[in-house]
Amino acid sequence: MKFSEFYLPTLREGGGDAIIASHRLMFRSGMIRKLSNGLFAYLPLGLRSFRKLENIIREEIEAIGAREIKAPVVVPGELWKESGRWDSMGDALLRAKNRLNVDLVVSPTAEEAFTAIVREDLFSYKQLPVNLYQINTKYRDEIRPRYGVMRAREFVMFDAYSFHVDEESLDSVYKAMGRAYKRIFKRCGLSVIPVKADSGAMGGAGSEEFMVESLIGDNILLLCPACDYSANVEKAGCQADFTPVPPLQEAKTRASSLPAVEIIDTPEVKTIAELCTFLKTDAKNFIKTLIYRALNVELDLSGVCNLERKKPSPDALPVYPEVFVAVCIRGDLDVNEVKLASVLKAAELALASEEDVRRITQAPLGFAGPVGLSAIPIIADESALAIPCAFTGALAEDKHYKNVVYGRDWTPFMSADLRTVKAGDKCPVCGEALYEKKGNELGHIFKLGKKYSTSMHLAYLDETGKSQIPTMGCYGIGLDRTLASVIEEHHDEAGIIWTATLAPFDVIIVPVKYDGEVKAAADELAAHLQKYGIDVLLDDRAERAGVKFNDADLIGIPYRVVVGDKNLSHDPPEFEIKKRGSKDSELIERGRAADYLAQRVRLDIEQLNGDES
Amino acid sequence: MKFSEFYLPTLREGGGDAIIASHRLMFRSGMIRKLSNGLFAYLPLGLRSFRKLENIIREEIEAIGAREIKAPVVVPGELWKESGRWDSMGDALLRAKNRLNVDLVVSPTAEEAFTAIVREDLFSYKQLPVNLYQINTKYRDEIRPRYGVMRAREFVMFDAYSFHVDEESLDSVYKAMGRAYKRIFKRCGLSVIPVKADSGAMGGAGSEEFMVESLIGDNILLLCPACDYSANVEKAGCQADFTPVPPLQEAKTRASSLPAVEIIDTPEVKTIAELCTFLKTDAKNFIKTLIYRALNVELDLSGVCNLERKKPSPDALPVYPEVFVAVCIRGDLDVNEVKLASVLKAAELALASEEDVRRITQAPLGFAGPVGLSAIPIIADESALAIPCAFTGALAEDKHYKNVVYGRDWTPFMSADLRTVKAGDKCPVCGEALYEKKGNELGHIFKLGKKYSTSMHLAYLDETGKSQIPTMGCYGIGLDRTLASVIEEHHDEAGIIWTATLAPFDVIIVPVKYDGEVKAAADELAAHLQKYGIDVLLDDRAERAGVKFNDADLIGIPYRVVVGDKNLSHDPPEFEIKKRGSKDSELIERGRAADYLAQRVRLDIEQLNGDES
Repeated sequence: MKFSEFYLPTLREGGGDAIIASHRLMFRSGMIRKLSNGLFAYLPLGLRSFRKLENIIREEIEAIGAREIKAPVVVPGELWKESGRWDSMGDALLRAKNRLNVDLVVSPTAEEAFTAIVREDLFSYKQLPVNLYQINTKYRDEIRPRYGVMRAREFVMFDAYSFHVDEESLDSVYKAMGRAYKRIFKRCGLSVIPVKADSGAMGGAGSEEFMVESLIGDNILLLCPACDYSANVEKAGCQADFTPVPPLQEAKTRASSLPAVEIIDTPEVKTIAELCTFLKTDAKNFIKTLIYRALNVELDLSGVCNLERKKPSPDALPVYPEVFVAVCIRGDLDVNEVKLASVLKAAELALASEEDVRRITQAPLGFAGPVGLSAIPIIADESALAIPCAFTGALAEDKHYKNVVYGRDWTPFMSADLRTVKAGDKCPVCGEALYEKKGNELGHIFKLGKKYSTSMHLAYLDETGKSQIPTMGCYGIGLDRTLASVIEEHHDEAGIIWTATLAPFDVIIVPVKYDGEVKAAADELAAHLQKYGIDVLLDDRAERAGVKFNDADLIGIPYRVVVGDKNLSHDPPEFEIKKRGSKDSELIERGRAADYLAQRVRLDIEQLNGDES
Repeated sequence: MKFSEFYLPTLREGGGDAIIASHRLMFRSGMIRKLSNGLFAYLPLGLRSFRKLENIIREEIEAIGAREIKAPVVVPGELWKESGRWDSMGDALLRAKNRLNVDLVVSPTAEEAFTAIVREDLFSYKQLPVNLYQINTKYRDEIRPRYGVMRAREFVMFDAYSFHVDEESLDSVYKAMGRAYKRIFKRCGLSVIPVKADSGAMGGAGSEEFMVESLIGDNILLLCPACDYSANVEKAGCQADFTPVPPLQEAKTRASSLPAVEIIDTPEVKTIAELCTFLKTDAKNFIKTLIYRALNVELDLSGVCNLERKKPSPDALPVYPEVFVAVCIRGDLDVNEVKLASVLKAAELALASEEDVRRITQAPLGFAGPVGLSAIPIIADESALAIPCAFTGALAEDKHYKNVVYGRDWTPFMSADLRTVKAGDKCPVCGEALYEKKGNELGHIFKLGKKYSTSMHLAYLDETGKSQIPTMGCYGIGLDRTLASVIEEHHDEAGIIWTATLAPFDVIIVPVKYDGEVKAAADELAAHLQKYGIDVLLDDRAERAGVKFNDADLIGIPYRVVVGDKNLSHDPPEFEIKKRGSKDSELIERGRAADYLAQRVRLDIEQLNGDES
């Protein structure tokens, strides 16, 4: 490809709103252009790398037996109503109405579409497992799109959905997907951290996120330096720094020997830090009580509260539309809202408003506590139960309790691990102190379970002719942010340093002046390399050599070949070859150059594509 | 690929709502599934052919120098407001609002997006011409989606946009595109009729449609059996069957010798046919007058009416928001509304309501005529001017005029060819009688002119440093309907008969029983063919041979190889090879089969890909 015949508008500067290197470099190198906030176009250079990434994904995913389909991007809102996500997705879902006033959705993911497609043809267990994928346009109405294609509104996602007769079959495909992901990211030249993740709004248990470390990452990862434990803070666990809580009966017995609960005045003392000073004690002796408002709660609370469950749609599971809960946790710890939502099986969760807190606790903000709190259910982090004699708010202004004892003065309806793990906490596997990193999620694998197959009536007949509901997995990789992440990991001051597998061109030929013998030699080399299947960009522009070198560095082509009069006049005539990112160049005989370069390119690609050692 | 590892749900029946063969066969063969009206998913089989079509288009379009980009599918409504199409596109445009209440469009075409992208980087004439394309998802909110993917709401379109310093450069790319289209359709094995088309709402002059003949086609084509003239009825011309009209002055002079206009009673006589009987004359002696309501009319009507022009947006051309015009045409002819809209440069056009007609003509429906009609401008088809002494409505109930003479009794503000051509009319090129066909449009090439570059402020500096507006072309091919049209042209009762270039697989191997030596021979052949780069489907299912044969015919794989005990026991062992669509099969030595098939497949593909003889 000749530079003059390619559409490659490079820019020495600009990309002023770019905060991260990949955004700035994709803009300057002419890979992308912005149409509006979160809406980007790929220019030819960017699209070439994009297609290479698509093909890496296709190869690895086809290799484990998934088959590609193409679902429509615009899908009937009806399907989203069947699954219940029409309501639960909120504003991230881009909705439209067609001319007949029928609801449509611009797909952010495709659980509904794939379930509907498979539903058309599935009848027997013999057809399972099914594993289908697509690489297709998605739209998610991000609140704050930023960092270029790293967090755009429209993006391209590889997404796969698998359907199984049992957990064992799902697990096998889930694991194969995880292995395929590792190969995909390795082939891209990306250092990826697989972490256990919470499955969030997707429902179901068992999921893993594939993260890249990033200063602008929106995930906090907890990693163990000693073993391979890694987890998203949303789901991370750690070894408890308190004695395990005895069973309720034992706790009650033990409680009888402890001093009785006592009310104390705490005038104008509000924060836990102030209380610690005032009471000359440690935050570890406090029970912090937070009031949460949870929406669409699936957890069965009968016997715990008098609320009534409702079905959001005829086929959905019954839920409590709105539930307030009090969460008790040790004073020095933080509630992990993702863990809490997961325990409650709540679609949404947030701290209750001040008004709601006043109504529920009959006191101003800051005096909530479990003793005597009967208006709403109490759930406890295990740490709160482990405090022998605790301080808590006393449900009255400027009053606290001391000597509060679990099993005697208060009893939650359930306890769980609701703590936020932080750097320094002990690895749940080996006990080493964990450390934190910020990460960006590139891919995700999920065990979805039967959420969609149940609500959307996907069924098959088993060996005995009985109707059964398949269990599902879903899997996704964001292509745009994967590409951007490769650039984040592989660039320098001058520009991108493409990995061999994703480089838009393998070789750039820079004739110092595209004329006479230099032109002839450059053309000959290009033709020769193309015969070998090497992607070549020939910079035929009438620009100064310096401009061409700068552009070559900016767009990051792995091998740059300079063809100039001086080296051509050597005996034998020579080219100057420089690998992008290395400091040194080398002179290669003109006659050997094509073979040499082709081999170097192939070796570089093989090195990335090769099996993990 | 093994059948059991492919997702290929074939159906012996079904597709009940399918009216055309391609829809029924794409459904039964498991190429597509319907998610909702006009929204389809491609299953793996369909997608394989789809990708092959994409690649044919890419190869031919890249060969003429266009470069691929990827614009977002969802684009800012702001760009459509800039171009003025936000208003003019009407309900076909799918609109949405994001969470910040910003208008978005799900792209039906991409003139705006491409103009905006090129606008980012264009500054000098040296950068032109630019020719960019994409193959991307589009959505058009069809009123009546039908015929499967032939007329769906979501579809994939190849669309290209070119930018030029002058008409000559545009013409050269326009012609190259036309030639590329012919090669693309030839490679698909499609018989395509290129016809001159009206450019409709796209604006600009010079366009060509690429049609396939189809019983359900929504275009009427007029074709000449003697020369290569072909045109869409919307734009077709024909040789006039009347004497050319003399200049106005001459007509006036001539008129003085003709009998004076006379009012006649025509009680309860309404249609032209009834009038002909009543007056004992021929429809050719009538001037039929129709009142039209036109919206956003660009034609300058100053001096013709007192209306005021407005700019729909600051940068748009001024238009008359609403104009009524009277159209006079010879009684036996029909007004071609596309020609009329084109002459008026109107965005929309329709017959006026009965109420409007009464108001304008001061008479009931059926008595309109040009004599004394002063309320609105009159435009005439040339045929109306050529009638020496005409009958017309007299703007009063049950009254007509006779002896109406052009230039004396009425004078339109302009005349033009506004006639609808029909079968039997004389070819405008050679005079032979034209015949009609129904056609479906697969592709389109347009000279857009400066409509978008003007309204969207796309400019460059010419050699003298002066700012200039580039002229544009746009080009499109519908991939879904191209694929469906190939099936329309290549199928029989049993199923699809794929052309070699688009076949999802080149060869299907059908082991009579996938076991023992038969299995070994089938596997060996598959492996051998795959080494040659031949796409093979191996039907490894435990189904009766008849079922497998039926499916092979249904999905239309070009070569079927039956591997069975009987033929394998021959000396030397043999396979049975049958070309899809031919009646006869042949026996080929097992050892020679792979070479033979590979060669046959290659020859078939080369035949379609080869240059036009």
